[in-house]
Amino acid sequence: MKTRVYAAASASAPLAPSTIERRAVGPRDVQLDILFSGICHSDIHQVRAEWGKAAFPMVPGHEIVGRVTAIGAEVTKLAVGDLAGIGCLVDSCRTCTYCGEHHEQFCERGAAGTYNSTEMDRVTPTYGGYAQQIVVTEHFALKVPNNLAPAGVAPLLCAGITTYSPLRQFDCKPGTRVGVVGLGGLGHMAVKIAAAMGAEVTMLSTSQSKQADATRLGAVDFGLTSDPATFTRLAGRYDLLIDTVSAKHDYGAYLKLLRPFGTMVCVGAPPEPSLMSAFSLIGGNKRIAGSAIGGIRETQEMLEFCSQHNLVADVEVIAARQINEAYERTIKGDVRYRFSIDATTFAD
Amino acid sequence: MKTRVYAAASASAPLAPSTIERRAVGPRDVQLDILFSGICHSDIHQVRAEWGKAAFPMVPGHEIVGRVTAIGAEVTKLAVGDLAGIGCLVDSCRTCTYCGEHHEQFCERGAAGTYNSTEMDRVTPTYGGYAQQIVVTEHFALKVPNNLAPAGVAPLLCAGITTYSPLRQFDCKPGTRVGVVGLGGLGHMAVKIAAAMGAEVTMLSTSQSKQADATRLGAVDFGLTSDPATFTRLAGRYDLLIDTVSAKHDYGAYLKLLRPFGTMVCVGAPPEPSLMSAFSLIGGNKRIAGSAIGGIRETQEMLEFCSQHNLVADVEVIAARQINEAYERTIKGDVRYRFSIDATTFAD
Repeated sequence: MKTRVYAAASASAPLAPSTIERRAVGPRDVQLDILFSGICHSDIHQVRAEWGKAAFPMVPGHEIVGRVTAIGAEVTKLAVGDLAGIGCLVDSCRTCTYCGEHHEQFCERGAAGTYNSTEMDRVTPTYGGYAQQIVVTEHFALKVPNNLAPAGVAPLLCAGITTYSPLRQFDCKPGTRVGVVGLGGLGHMAVKIAAAMGAEVTMLSTSQSKQADATRLGAVDFGLTSDPATFTRLAGRYDLLIDTVSAKHDYGAYLKLLRPFGTMVCVGAPPEPSLMSAFSLIGGNKRIAGSAIGGIRETQEMLEFCSQHNLVADVEVIAARQINEAYERTIKGDVRYRFSIDATTFAD
Repeated sequence: MKTRVYAAASASAPLAPSTIERRAVGPRDVQLDILFSGICHSDIHQVRAEWGKAAFPMVPGHEIVGRVTAIGAEVTKLAVGDLAGIGCLVDSCRTCTYCGEHHEQFCERGAAGTYNSTEMDRVTPTYGGYAQQIVVTEHFALKVPNNLAPAGVAPLLCAGITTYSPLRQFDCKPGTRVGVVGLGGLGHMAVKIAAAMGAEVTMLSTSQSKQADATRLGAVDFGLTSDPATFTRLAGRYDLLIDTVSAKHDYGAYLKLLRPFGTMVCVGAPPEPSLMSAFSLIGGNKRIAGSAIGGIRETQEMLEFCSQHNLVADVEVIAARQINEAYERTIKGDVRYRFSIDATTFAD
């Protein structure tokens, strides 16, 4: 099947309309008519070859929500007409230790990414969600609850699970004191989800202008991190910090905000290494952790959590022709808080 | 009561015989005749004012084992004639959250260190274990099992608990794959304790000459970390790394040795910050943690564990007059694996 997409021909080319071929629906495949595709900052890094390996033509997009239009004979998870989602992964070996533990993102053979990757045959390129249609093996399709607005569901498939997973890993629960560092696509999801889990959330931002939004999203406190006094006022306060910042910053300063045995989780990754002193961890048995998206089981759990709490991303819906402009605005942080592409406009 | 000690008059002075006054035994105090005092590398850092605040005269020593010679009227934990130990702490507020959680080392008011510190009055200086006698409030005295050689028990009070605690925090159990980085005072205890917990222990050392000892201490594998091929061979292998190295090293290289969700615990602290990339944590949901000694309850638990496993530090017993020479040998790593001072020689 041919499908209309937006693709980049090279690392220096803008995204432009194109057509690709999707595989025929196999016995365990589902085919979606895509409704919305979120724009993740990592799309920009990859399409501009800023993160190493970049295969062209590239069709970005790993925050996908759509409606099932065809299923293979052996498919049981989804039916034609269902809403479905696809995140950052489209396949894995499904036999290794980590696949067995439901952490397909750490598949020992290397999982198949939704784009800028290959299928498990290591040959067939994968193309992402900036497209009218997509075909995926059912294990990697998520069931999307019907009570959520699809445009805001799309970003849950990456930004949502990326913040939900560390909150679960580090036992966020009613009364947990959570600081969210940075209010962008990831940060706004972290605030919403942590607040829905019952945590007492503080937004830590370099920009005073974010305070009103942070409050609206569910934060009960705000710390202006461009003011050194904030680090004194909030010292030793947090059980958990979710650090969404991908610009270089001083981990040691943030570690001081943790109480003993507290954890700071990095979900944003500065391009260059940061200095870190072991002393800042040892005093107070503190921890720094990384967290990469989540497995399929946990992603499904996240969608059900969001359904129960009627929680989606704040999105600005755009047409396909606005993608390149949206990239520039994403880089400037000029979006509250995620662009969601109306996938019907790929047909234009 | 006057007691003979070895003290430093200044940061540049060698340790020399001296006499200090110990307080009278209060209703909740115990008095010990010290049998052995371990030499911890941090004694050297502190006595040479390499770690900031240094109060002189300084009597180092926080790895103390002795016999109870007097108790206050209200003491119930120990009796005259019992073996007792004292570690890095001699008091804390005992009312704050962290004291209540049995983590006195993180007392919100600041715990009283065994030396180079003050009692909780913030005025009375504390003097450590390079001494004939010491008086301590019973809560901070540990019960020392009778089946262990006291000379080797002394280092358990710091090196022992410093390695036992992170092994417990991160759930070391039969079959856990533990890598111990560096074979010195801390490293040799980490190998012994992890092996006694049933872990599959690898010694990771820059020095091939440590392999035979590592095997004797309980390691089943050895990785020569000066050989880059070691990092390929052992990639993704460990659930837990106990990093005892206090010289600057590349955390990223060691993080690659962890399996997904694995933790590297720093118990050695390089004097300068190290570069660390968030990417090295995010790929595999890895964690870096710090760990500082342990609370009194956990230290008692550690002593009982060591008793059950008939496990003490490997020590070279020295007389008080050999302390300065032992310091030089400790700096060179020329001790297998801890000096233990025969405290009867402070009387000489």
